[in-house]
Amino acid sequence: MAKSLKLGIAGLGTVGAGVIKILNEKRTLIAQRTGCSVDVVAVSARNKQQDRGVSMESFRWFDNAVDLAGDPEIDIFVELIGGSDGVALQSVRRALEAGKHVVTANKALIAVHGTELAVLAEKQKVSLSFEASVAGGIPIIKAMRDGLVSNTVSRVYGILNGTCNYILSVMEESGRSFEDVLKDAQDLGYAEADPSFDVGGVDAAHKLAILSSLAFGSAVDFDSIYIEGIESIRAQDIAMAAELGMRIKLLGIATKTDHGIEQRVHPCLVRLDRPIASVDGVTNAVVVESDHLGRLVLEGPGAGEMPTASAVVADIGDIAKAVTQPTFMKSAGELQPPQKSDMDDHIGEYYLRLTAQDKPGVMAEITQDLAAEGVSIETIIQRGGDGQEAVPIVLVTHQCRESVMKRALDRIVAHDAIVRPPRMIRIEDL
Amino acid sequence: MAKSLKLGIAGLGTVGAGVIKILNEKRTLIAQRTGCSVDVVAVSARNKQQDRGVSMESFRWFDNAVDLAGDPEIDIFVELIGGSDGVALQSVRRALEAGKHVVTANKALIAVHGTELAVLAEKQKVSLSFEASVAGGIPIIKAMRDGLVSNTVSRVYGILNGTCNYILSVMEESGRSFEDVLKDAQDLGYAEADPSFDVGGVDAAHKLAILSSLAFGSAVDFDSIYIEGIESIRAQDIAMAAELGMRIKLLGIATKTDHGIEQRVHPCLVRLDRPIASVDGVTNAVVVESDHLGRLVLEGPGAGEMPTASAVVADIGDIAKAVTQPTFMKSAGELQPPQKSDMDDHIGEYYLRLTAQDKPGVMAEITQDLAAEGVSIETIIQRGGDGQEAVPIVLVTHQCRESVMKRALDRIVAHDAIVRPPRMIRIEDL
Repeated sequence: MAKSLKLGIAGLGTVGAGVIKILNEKRTLIAQRTGCSVDVVAVSARNKQQDRGVSMESFRWFDNAVDLAGDPEIDIFVELIGGSDGVALQSVRRALEAGKHVVTANKALIAVHGTELAVLAEKQKVSLSFEASVAGGIPIIKAMRDGLVSNTVSRVYGILNGTCNYILSVMEESGRSFEDVLKDAQDLGYAEADPSFDVGGVDAAHKLAILSSLAFGSAVDFDSIYIEGIESIRAQDIAMAAELGMRIKLLGIATKTDHGIEQRVHPCLVRLDRPIASVDGVTNAVVVESDHLGRLVLEGPGAGEMPTASAVVADIGDIAKAVTQPTFMKSAGELQPPQKSDMDDHIGEYYLRLTAQDKPGVMAEITQDLAAEGVSIETIIQRGGDGQEAVPIVLVTHQCRESVMKRALDRIVAHDAIVRPPRMIRIEDL
Repeated sequence: MAKSLKLGIAGLGTVGAGVIKILNEKRTLIAQRTGCSVDVVAVSARNKQQDRGVSMESFRWFDNAVDLAGDPEIDIFVELIGGSDGVALQSVRRALEAGKHVVTANKALIAVHGTELAVLAEKQKVSLSFEASVAGGIPIIKAMRDGLVSNTVSRVYGILNGTCNYILSVMEESGRSFEDVLKDAQDLGYAEADPSFDVGGVDAAHKLAILSSLAFGSAVDFDSIYIEGIESIRAQDIAMAAELGMRIKLLGIATKTDHGIEQRVHPCLVRLDRPIASVDGVTNAVVVESDHLGRLVLEGPGAGEMPTASAVVADIGDIAKAVTQPTFMKSAGELQPPQKSDMDDHIGEYYLRLTAQDKPGVMAEITQDLAAEGVSIETIIQRGGDGQEAVPIVLVTHQCRESVMKRALDRIVAHDAIVRPPRMIRIEDL
């Protein structure tokens, strides 16, 4: 067991400042628990003058993170810069090449370059750890690597983006529109000024790519993820979901199917009695389904300064305890891209919301189209007809293949009576 | 990293057979994930002839587990005999003395002798691991030791006994009596022929003692746990709880208070909107509240052959990955018994069910008694009066000290009009 470890931290935003606070406050506790003292010796950020609520005076300062990564004094390089490329990637590569352990909270970096970096880490016999990159403070990666060591995972899924979950929760409580609630979330600091990574599903997809690789022992394959965000969810869909005994959640889901690994991030209708349905606000939840353990659920804070910093420190703790293990649960050289299961092969139930002219024969046309493709209907809800020009029609289908659902939709939208693009939301039987 | 590890397994019940099955089936996967091959070489049980659904032919057989524990060939001794003393204790001591790592699922052993065994393990520089002893397959000990390494825990609690949770869930669904549902649970194999350890709360208390030690860095102190089982819960209490927007759960709760560490296992009323309230059936859930991470919830199968065996194998996996760390998160020699917080100092809300003669003045007497002790009432529910001799009166109090609540109850039961012993259930604001 190492007796002392020296850290260099690159990126001094809220998480970086949080890591320094924790290492200051909990120095004795961490030494007691790991048998090793951990000290920050050097830091790097863009602006040396900024007040970060914690003293940086005793640390050597580097204007350039790549130089810090190669500094001979440090044992661990902590990358909190962010972004899949640029300085983050350069500095992590430099640190690994220099034989330093790397701890990062950077989901984009690992989702895009994880396999390459794991190969480098393995060659250099150092750790590459990224617990904080998925679901903030929740120790989901440790649970999968250590707690499920003998388990074969069949599915991993979760609420991986707190911003989306917060927006959907508030839309549901208040009946307000997406745009309206997003603005509030931005004012409260729950959403970025440019919210597209969050609400567009990319952030959740970064995290899913990492979970999927750990679950199935395949190379990280961000590019093969099907991604749909929550921007087009209407208050009306949330109200209809409630009427159907369901809620709308943005989920990331990776499943081993007969066709390969299906990785997808999109809004889902989930029945109210499922554990994931009751996860509200900025909380994250991850569910792992495996052969021996069955269903394991982890729920906790998915973001925020201290939870995320706590996960970074937990990775440092593993290194202090001399834990080294394959980055993605097998030798990095053996990681192969997963066989991708196409979304056209996805099988599930579907929620369809159509907007149709209120005239005789429309429902007959729609139901004939569905029947022609072999899609059977579980529920139809049609309201209105009180003089409105166009009325909403909501259909819930039984299970069918997505390619079939799409063909049926193509038939439906071809009718003149369908006045707006239809809305299709997948129903998840979790 | 060790390249191969040899196991001796003592105790070949369902969990022991499950461990052998997993190690057979997942040999390659475990080697891939840990960098080490793991092989069972010797076993011990009472009856050599019994069919356990898995071949024992290639293993050396020991009639005596203590002899197996000292066998020079084995690296890890897996104790699945059970019981806090006797052969289990003797064989674990022998294994540690002989410098073997020990993995056990034995909650009673660790709850009663954990500190002593941790001291011995530390002296011998070997691991003593017991993930399977708490909450079956849920990797809660690893989450606390690794995921929360820098966190100071303020409270840990959970549904730690699947039998009790199953019985309470079925009582709630069906309105049937405790005795009736217990009998069914026994027929279904969810409860032992002698159910007293489960329904009396002792099993949950064993688990809580272990969690509490990990949470607060104190010696395992089973004897100081306040324990109350579910035997006296009536269908009526469950129905009243529902009316109050609550459910009854058997919880184990360890809290850092101003008076010391409060450890208690008893039925609790929990509000429906709390995450723990929706955990049904044999599922276990553990919640850890800490300074940086906030609230972390783990939920999964708390018992059963494969989940428990999976947790045993996960501990073996840690040893294969050469993970060694203090058994209870600090040097065992420094473990001190926690300062015990007395239940009289507990502060909470209370549910009281009284059975009183239906005559004028009774309610005045009760409310005066409560007022005399300074207990204020939040809710009173009184029904009946339709000629019945005795009627139930349910009261919910605001927060008060337990010693005060007890004094008020002493006053109340002294009245002739109170015809049966009152029922007091603590309400938990989790």
